[in-house]
Amino acid sequence: MPADRGLFLTFEGGDGSGKSTQSALLTEWLAAGGRTVVHSREPGGTELGLELREIILHRRGYIAPRAEALLYAADRAHNIATVVRPALERGDIVIQDRYLDSSVAYQGAGRVLDADEVREVSLWATERLLPDLTILLDLDIEAGRARLDDARTRYDRLEAEAAEFHHRVREAYLALAAAEPARFLVLDAALPIDELAARIRERVSDLLA
Amino acid sequence: MPADRGLFLTFEGGDGSGKSTQSALLTEWLAAGGRTVVHSREPGGTELGLELREIILHRRGYIAPRAEALLYAADRAHNIATVVRPALERGDIVIQDRYLDSSVAYQGAGRVLDADEVREVSLWATERLLPDLTILLDLDIEAGRARLDDARTRYDRLEAEAAEFHHRVREAYLALAAAEPARFLVLDAALPIDELAARIRERVSDLLA
Repeated sequence: MPADRGLFLTFEGGDGSGKSTQSALLTEWLAAGGRTVVHSREPGGTELGLELREIILHRRGYIAPRAEALLYAADRAHNIATVVRPALERGDIVIQDRYLDSSVAYQGAGRVLDADEVREVSLWATERLLPDLTILLDLDIEAGRARLDDARTRYDRLEAEAAEFHHRVREAYLALAAAEPARFLVLDAALPIDELAARIRERVSDLLA
Repeated sequence: MPADRGLFLTFEGGDGSGKSTQSALLTEWLAAGGRTVVHSREPGGTELGLELREIILHRRGYIAPRAEALLYAADRAHNIATVVRPALERGDIVIQDRYLDSSVAYQGAGRVLDADEVREVSLWATERLLPDLTILLDLDIEAGRARLDDARTRYDRLEAEAAEFHHRVREAYLALAAAEPARFLVLDAALPIDELAARIRERVSDLLA
């Protein structure tokens, strides 16, 4: 692996899709190849970000939707300016758990704010930094849901709404991937761990070549 | 004064230009006319805003410029959504110390971020809410500075830079007023307090008529 070029890699997908596992395996492989890997996450990848994460995720009381989106964007702006860009300039590889696609997919699914506007705010926050590669671990929620249906005869309303929301998040992610096929690697998160890791390594190898 | 219409009034101008004094006199007059006045400020007009103000103004350590601008915008989004718009919908008069013109003027003067982009972020944050009237208390800093010059033979560099910065803020404010003459009332802050108050009352009366 040539060591002279930084790379910005992001993992996307729902909770439980295997982002952490695949991120760790990819790091191990890159480190074995002599590359320096910087891990990052949003929200909360910096000290300022931790304060904002505390406000966003744990504060009691209502936060206006635009205020919340702007707090995520502030966290992102600081993380990109102080962690990600300096690492890329040193030639390191940055592996980040979630980035602007998360904001866009979850906002698009929540239907409170316009997803394109949320994307534009994020792009302003980061001076339009897009990842070299975004690995979307796509989980077929309906398959899991269908198995659950066999065992039980009814949902309550909240569960049905939650399932519908996660379905919309997944559809939003897939639409983002379809719009930027060169940036996205979409993988079926239900594949065996080793097979997923091999396919991710293959794509990262191409980028490093 | 008819009581059926909310009004959003903002005061702008440098520190020491008399915003608080004129805001208090205007409030007294409006209250005597039977109107309900809601006072607001940015940053820190809400509980969430106070937490953000603490971060913006008192946090140790570097904050990336775009992160800072987005924190101001988050404060603004929450203040407008939870304080200002509900008050206007009740038919109250909102008098606010500083609004988006502050962000634009100070950013424009600081020359770190593009002022038009900062304005656009604020407009997104507030769903494009502009004041019915913005009172700019314009202080001729150079006149004050010239008097100081008579008494002293030299500046140090920081003072000269500070004077240059305040000069640019003032120019940026005046350019904003010139671009939206219908929204702005520009007054010479060096006028007597009572004369300023009378001219502000006159303009607000017109709006209420």
